[in-house]
Amino acid sequence: MRIVRVDVSNEIHWGVLRDDTVELLSVPPFEGIVSSGRTVPVSETRFLAPVVPQKIICLGRNYGEHVAEMGYVPADSPALFMKPPGSVIGPDELVVLPPTWLSTHVEHEAELGIVIGRGGRFIEEADALEAVLGFTCADDVSARDLQKSDPHPTRGKGFDTFCPVGPWIETDVSLDGGLGIRCRVNGVLRQDASTAQMIFNVPFLVSYISQYTTLVPGDLILTGSPGGTLPLGDGDVVEIEIEGVGLLRHGVRDA
Amino acid sequence: MRIVRVDVSNEIHWGVLRDDTVELLSVPPFEGIVSSGRTVPVSETRFLAPVVPQKIICLGRNYGEHVAEMGYVPADSPALFMKPPGSVIGPDELVVLPPTWLSTHVEHEAELGIVIGRGGRFIEEADALEAVLGFTCADDVSARDLQKSDPHPTRGKGFDTFCPVGPWIETDVSLDGGLGIRCRVNGVLRQDASTAQMIFNVPFLVSYISQYTTLVPGDLILTGSPGGTLPLGDGDVVEIEIEGVGLLRHGVRDA
Repeated sequence: MRIVRVDVSNEIHWGVLRDDTVELLSVPPFEGIVSSGRTVPVSETRFLAPVVPQKIICLGRNYGEHVAEMGYVPADSPALFMKPPGSVIGPDELVVLPPTWLSTHVEHEAELGIVIGRGGRFIEEADALEAVLGFTCADDVSARDLQKSDPHPTRGKGFDTFCPVGPWIETDVSLDGGLGIRCRVNGVLRQDASTAQMIFNVPFLVSYISQYTTLVPGDLILTGSPGGTLPLGDGDVVEIEIEGVGLLRHGVRDA
Repeated sequence: MRIVRVDVSNEIHWGVLRDDTVELLSVPPFEGIVSSGRTVPVSETRFLAPVVPQKIICLGRNYGEHVAEMGYVPADSPALFMKPPGSVIGPDELVVLPPTWLSTHVEHEAELGIVIGRGGRFIEEADALEAVLGFTCADDVSARDLQKSDPHPTRGKGFDTFCPVGPWIETDVSLDGGLGIRCRVNGVLRQDASTAQMIFNVPFLVSYISQYTTLVPGDLILTGSPGGTLPLGDGDVVEIEIEGVGLLRHGVRDA
């Protein structure tokens, strides 16, 4: 099932995508999938970011090739950081590059996003997927110069618009064997990997994060980027495609 | 003016504290101070955390003595990190220590909290205080062992209950000359400094943070801890007092 958040005539609704229509829901999907009985054609909707997270917890250094290209050593424990909720944008929106006096080197990072459903605290690995509503595509956009010069990655990862998410939450995903994850910029393949290459996998991460902070419905976990991250510039079109999840497209513009 | 958030007969209200009464407000204080016309005795209220922040942005290494006791070198740029909104607790609530298999070394950090009012993006230093609603006391509770062993401080700083805040938002604060900031644990003075010792001051921080992320009403900025941070244990009572702002008290208990 593909859960969407859509703008219909300037009203925001949750919905379920069925072919070329959206069946609108009467309550947020975290409370159950309850149809409102109203269906609208996709052409009369605009897809919004499919999550409004209270918190966004991200992982660095989770694919060996990216660890190497960043010049890091593999971490013994997950390299967690947070992005602010205001960094989220939806499908087909624009990443706004920082003014050049702040940063001149921004890169894409294709990532599998975990959308928390029931959530909880001290979730066991074996129960982790029951706490999850589904998966989405995300771009963990990163100002590399600031990420490297600052003591922590908070600023370099946290700019407004630096978290494109979507196009929907896919609830029927089998992680077994890994999902192909690719990023194309202006049609050129830049990242091409499998989520099977993650150092810390999805159930581990959900369990690990829930050891310190209660995961609440709608929280978003970004699971780290594979290798191949490269600079973005004004006018670029980024496509992040995850097998069995979806394809997220967003633009890029100068400040 | 002291702005409080109170529980009155299981209903949550914003209010203004006037001696031993609370004048309830009809809209959140970020939208203006509008009296509801209803006043209740303080004895019939329970003070809650005076902010429900969308985001909590914190600063490390902002007082020389604490930089030294942590074994750090002073940073050229602010060492920013985030705490999750779920870490907030109010006055007289309990910090719950992590289970000992996760952490055995948790410390207090008395900090001046900036509560954002109007907020904005690209706020000039000269205009920074106009974007601020007021100030509060905070304890940036920190699991030192995890903070030091993890790649980033996200987990060590982010446990549920690790952000006691209150008791109110004081709007009439002059930062000129610095504010005395003290922490007592079980009545024993542990931290005693002045906000004048901050390496990066309040207007700079508001401006600097707003360069990357839009500050929204209710956002909370913690401005770093002076030296003297020491371990906490079950049953401790922590008092954080900031001159001209207030006194925040909270307890501590084992998991």
